[in-house]
Amino acid sequence: MSIVVQKFGGSSVGSPERMRRVARRIAETADAGNKVAVVVSAMGDTTDDLIALAQQLTTRPPAREMDMLLSTGEQISISLLAMTLQEMGYAAISLTGRQAGYHTCGTYAKAKIVAMDSVRVLDELNKGNIVIVAGFQGTDKRGEINTLGRGGSDTSAVALAVALEADVCEIFTDVDGVFTADPRVVRKAWKMPEISYDEMLEMAVMGALVLQPRSVELAKQYGVKLHVRSSFNHSEGTIVKEVACMYKDLEKELVVSGVAHDMNVLKTTIFGVPDSPGVAGEIFGRLAAEKINVDMIIQSGSRDTRQDISFTTGRDERHKIERILTEIVRQLPAESYMIIDTIAKVSVIGAGMITNPGVAATTFRTLAGIGCNIDMIATSEIRISCIIDETKVTEAALALHTAFGLDAAPAIDN
Amino acid sequence: MSIVVQKFGGSSVGSPERMRRVARRIAETADAGNKVAVVVSAMGDTTDDLIALAQQLTTRPPAREMDMLLSTGEQISISLLAMTLQEMGYAAISLTGRQAGYHTCGTYAKAKIVAMDSVRVLDELNKGNIVIVAGFQGTDKRGEINTLGRGGSDTSAVALAVALEADVCEIFTDVDGVFTADPRVVRKAWKMPEISYDEMLEMAVMGALVLQPRSVELAKQYGVKLHVRSSFNHSEGTIVKEVACMYKDLEKELVVSGVAHDMNVLKTTIFGVPDSPGVAGEIFGRLAAEKINVDMIIQSGSRDTRQDISFTTGRDERHKIERILTEIVRQLPAESYMIIDTIAKVSVIGAGMITNPGVAATTFRTLAGIGCNIDMIATSEIRISCIIDETKVTEAALALHTAFGLDAAPAIDN
Repeated sequence: MSIVVQKFGGSSVGSPERMRRVARRIAETADAGNKVAVVVSAMGDTTDDLIALAQQLTTRPPAREMDMLLSTGEQISISLLAMTLQEMGYAAISLTGRQAGYHTCGTYAKAKIVAMDSVRVLDELNKGNIVIVAGFQGTDKRGEINTLGRGGSDTSAVALAVALEADVCEIFTDVDGVFTADPRVVRKAWKMPEISYDEMLEMAVMGALVLQPRSVELAKQYGVKLHVRSSFNHSEGTIVKEVACMYKDLEKELVVSGVAHDMNVLKTTIFGVPDSPGVAGEIFGRLAAEKINVDMIIQSGSRDTRQDISFTTGRDERHKIERILTEIVRQLPAESYMIIDTIAKVSVIGAGMITNPGVAATTFRTLAGIGCNIDMIATSEIRISCIIDETKVTEAALALHTAFGLDAAPAIDN
Repeated sequence: MSIVVQKFGGSSVGSPERMRRVARRIAETADAGNKVAVVVSAMGDTTDDLIALAQQLTTRPPAREMDMLLSTGEQISISLLAMTLQEMGYAAISLTGRQAGYHTCGTYAKAKIVAMDSVRVLDELNKGNIVIVAGFQGTDKRGEINTLGRGGSDTSAVALAVALEADVCEIFTDVDGVFTADPRVVRKAWKMPEISYDEMLEMAVMGALVLQPRSVELAKQYGVKLHVRSSFNHSEGTIVKEVACMYKDLEKELVVSGVAHDMNVLKTTIFGVPDSPGVAGEIFGRLAAEKINVDMIIQSGSRDTRQDISFTTGRDERHKIERILTEIVRQLPAESYMIIDTIAKVSVIGAGMITNPGVAATTFRTLAGIGCNIDMIATSEIRISCIIDETKVTEAALALHTAFGLDAAPAIDN
């Protein structure tokens, strides 16, 4: 008998209708002879509604009380989902993060899972129950409720799969799986049957947010097989596992496995920053303290004792950045700063890159071929990202998809 | 430094506006130099909304999952109230039933508190925090969430006051205190400065539901001083304590301390019930199994081997009773049943009754004097209740209030 962990996001359970559909999906998995543990998020807009309520009462919601508040969202959805399954005639039980054994580190709003005690979940599975677990939450050693922060439910699901030694952790989404590029933009994009953890990580970081990076890292660490699939149909999705080797024709192994693009890019440049030790630490420390996620950073060569620093973030950070930089420019002092939001990021990703040094050259040549200027470049072992003008991003994604031989799906060895 | 426990119901915290008003009230109590622990219910309609959500998904909501669901209501209000106090500059912390140390018996939907571990609450109070505790809930020894059932938050507050050895447990309501009769009906009714636990209990049972009977019983058992007062103004309410002795003129001690009336009365009569052992047990066992609260029961003298049984309940039980009695009449068999809802209950209450045998006679004579027929009678040591026609109830309450000398408030020794 296999153990299957399934994870459903908030929009999947956003209404009684959808809740029933999710319950049917779970029931089918149980009917197929599996032990099923399900991690579920808060229903639809519940979390946003609770945040709005708090904002009516306080301008600075304290983190502990926000965790106390927000953790109710998942508690509501697990109880309703368990009831729905019981109504359909299935034995089911809901468990809060605490009851399911999630021990967290004690940091409110963005806790890490430090240990899992799966005794209760296993016990309920062995009694024949479908176990419905609240994602996104756990309790620390003092018994305080912690939430896991953004994307926490994916991480909850993977952690549960690790603890249960589950055969697979199915992540249900509103897309069919992981594609070689965004199919809405690149018509020839195709769903990859398999992908490695590292490639998935880069995809996630790239803004193709099918899975949260933390959960992929955890899956990689413990070798948990992930199955990213649609909650709307029964087609096979994309399997994420250690080594993806799916192509019959090994000689035609793909160097690049996907092209990702992201319009949510804001570039900030600080001009005339003093070239002295600690300045970069000061700037990015301030941004980090305000929880601003910085993606790419470029420091220009110094002219005399001053230099320019550019970095990219999400566009919704604009107001915070303006406030912080106005202060920083005065304090350092720097000359001025500038924010640009008419840019986008395009990336090529592939584990094959490590052994194929020509990928960067092909990328730059391809972009040049469509008359696309590259503003910033960032690379990892298996990814190359370029900041370009946002008007060029679709053309760039299409051109790179073609250039790296992705337009024709290869024969698949299933 | 005094320890004060305060309890606010759901309507008191039903909106951000009201939440702020409650927070100010709590802050005033803290400013006066008290250590304050607050028990709060779910906001306004939250509980009803959650029940409605469950009913969209299941026809028979399982009790365990309902407790999992409904306990989120209090968790939301405690976190929001703690935030509001913090916003106002007060140190405050919210605690769930589990964190506050409520150990319950394990019965879902109507758990009893079996023990309280007040270490955490005391610790937070000693740290200078105002402690906001979720009413209505606790956890059993397996870590399962139990709710306390109807009126549970009153009981939560009293239990906390017991555990903390609080100086007073203040129950905030939308009325100014406990009155000698319903002031909307009896214009001359006045607020009693003091009342005994037993009188309060009878008042509660009578439908003058200022306080839940369970909480009064608990307060009596441990001698917790209750203060029933308004959340809308700062006037003194009614103190509930062991012996109420408030009148200067002891000779003029009131035999009857209050008149209560209740329109929510439904009378069911079963005709021709077999006069054999176990029949009453069968009937009332079935009603109890469906959680129908039966108030008065009268068994008529038997004619031959058959008799009639009448009982009263709340009017909202009508449908359930019809269904159950249709079956019972067929099974026993009995001859038929009849349900009447054009009746009401009027009661006189007073600890002084025990030593004053004339109260029943005065009651019956007074009702007769206004041409009011008595349909059923029930008595306890400190209460006499009569079922009468509903059109007569206002007149009856006024007449009894006058007959027992309640119209003029006595001089009070405060």
